Amino acid sequence: MPNNPYADGCAWIEGAYVPIHEARIPILDTGFTHSDVTYDVVAVWNGKFFRLDAHMARFTSSWQRLRMTPSLSVSDMQDILYECVRRSGLRNAYVEMVLSRGVAPAGTRDPRLFDNRFYAYAIPYVWIVQPEDQEIGTHLVICQDTIRISPQAVDPTIKNFHWGDLVRGLFEAYDRGGTTAVLMDADGYLTEGPGFNLFAYYEGCLLTPDSGVLEGVTRRTVLELAEEMAIPAKMDRFRADVLRAADEIFITSTAGGVMPVTVLDDQQVGNGKPGSVTMRLRKRYWDAHDEAHWTSPVDYPA
Amino acid sequence: MPNNPYADGCAWIEGAYVPIHEARIPILDTGFTHSDVTYDVVAVWNGKFFRLDAHMARFTSSWQRLRMTPSLSVSDMQDILYECVRRSGLRNAYVEMVLSRGVAPAGTRDPRLFDNRFYAYAIPYVWIVQPEDQEIGTHLVICQDTIRISPQAVDPTIKNFHWGDLVRGLFEAYDRGGTTAVLMDADGYLTEGPGFNLFAYYEGCLLTPDSGVLEGVTRRTVLELAEEMAIPAKMDRFRADVLRAADEIFITSTAGGVMPVTVLDDQQVGNGKPGSVTMRLRKRYWDAHDEAHWTSPVDYPA
Ligand SMILES: Cc1ncc(COP(=O)(O)O)c(C=O)c1O
Ligand SMILES: Cc1ncc(COP(=O)(O)O)c(C=O)c1O
Repeated sequence: MPNNPYADGCAWIEGAYVPIHEARIPILDTGFTHSDVTYDVVAVWNGKFFRLDAHMARFTSSWQRLRMTPSLSVSDMQDILYECVRRSGLRNAYVEMVLSRGVAPAGTRDPRLFDNRFYAYAIPYVWIVQPEDQEIGTHLVICQDTIRISPQAVDPTIKNFHWGDLVRGLFEAYDRGGTTAVLMDADGYLTEGPGFNLFAYYEGCLLTPDSGVLEGVTRRTVLELAEEMAIPAKMDRFRADVLRAADEIFITSTAGGVMPVTVLDDQQVGNGKPGSVTMRLRKRYWDAHDEAHWTSPVDYPA
Repeated sequence: MPNNPYADGCAWIEGAYVPIHEARIPILDTGFTHSDVTYDVVAVWNGKFFRLDAHMARFTSSWQRLRMTPSLSVSDMQDILYECVRRSGLRNAYVEMVLSRGVAPAGTRDPRLFDNRFYAYAIPYVWIVQPEDQEIGTHLVICQDTIRISPQAVDPTIKNFHWGDLVRGLFEAYDRGGTTAVLMDADGYLTEGPGFNLFAYYEGCLLTPDSGVLEGVTRRTVLELAEEMAIPAKMDRFRADVLRAADEIFITSTAGGVMPVTVLDDQQVGNGKPGSVTMRLRKRYWDAHDEAHWTSPVDYPA
């Protein structure tokens, strides 16, 4: 496809496919002005969606709990995601779907009365940590100045754009020489970071926070693969002391997969190299992107 | 101005004035995808900006603390606000200015490297409570299911679009037969609601929360007018018990002014009519919109 206008990405906005750099939403959309919106991100790898059903189920649960009602069916939405990828021609893509409360109709501010709006786009695959940096491992900072938004304020299991705490944490990480950040909750339990879940390998068992976090599809995939690989694992809350004593640390996201952490604050993790359990899971994670039960191929134009 | 294309509102988007219903922002702007953005809202009343300096100062302090750097000077921004109002022809307007982190340049996710984007628009004046409903007073609900986002997570004095808690509170208020909602913090102190600050008139003194809230310009105006009118007032935290025992309650916002509350949860406030202190302050508030020291006239086209 020479001169494909969608080569940098393709979006679907109010019924039309548009090149990503022309994709715009109304400035009055309360998805922007009140961040009254939910979203999901699914990856396409080697021309195949990875665990699309899990992402559609999480997305559906998110907008239902926000009491939104899309005008499209879930199957219509899926068709749109496929078409965005197909038009872009991207074999490795970051595919986002959004349901926003929408724009207030004239004369009301009551969010129950808005038409909710669906948006979607496919862009080149996004890496929170670049593959070459994953070989070395990333430098994670435990934030001291910022805590994660409480689930009693905004439910983190409804995937959301409330990233003020996460971005503030990221700036703290940069100030302290780090690359990314993990936030504690008000009680000092570790939660998650800008775009990822957290794992520790501690005393022979994988640990990942059980609450106060997004139920990441990558986290779930890692837990399922760990079971298959007979690596002990459990979901439970834990504090900084456990993370500091961990033999291995990694972070997980649809945007980057299983990403080793080799420096925590000012301290080396384990021997300072990506851990062996981490690297085995990482390999298994990417191998799974070729397996039929978790993938659905895109039918690209010839 | 017959057929004025800006009659419903005028926006400024990346260097161009556009009719409000055509005003759009990039879907990839992290002001949307991470709510990494700050804003301010100033009113124009009877053709004059009200306390524009105070709003520009708060806006500047907000983006500075988010470590953003606009490419425009504050005086350029002000010129744009005036021009949006002028083109719209609106005599009573809700004028919003936004500074967003912006769109990630190719190949990075580091928010320090983004060009921050300014957006602005003027639309018809917005009433959180319609003037006719203000005569009766509104029905406020103290939320039990949702707390306000903690200042340790997202600083509420940096005016922000993180309204997930406020909208969730609004739905709870509707479910309980109310019209709007006020949220408590994790310690049970009252904070604010969707778009407004809270005041109680209790034991002969005005009370408004001193922390965990936006430093509203209307709140400050009410405190200054109270001083002028010799009405005792103080900023201090207080809980639901004080609010329930208050003789008068009102909420304040640039979008609606001083708005009486006459029902709290299932209980009448005072004698169930807007209170006399509230109504005196409300009148004084609107009268001040004609006084030279707080206003700056718009030079409308002939
Ligand atoms: C806050 C947060 N936590 C965790 C994740 C990881 O979730 P998943 O593995 O489903 O991509 C994300 C992904 O964007 C996220 O934004
Ligand atoms: C959360 C919140 N609190 C308070 C206010 C009132 O502030 P101001 O009086 O400056 O409009 C607003 C206004 O939008 C707000 O959004």
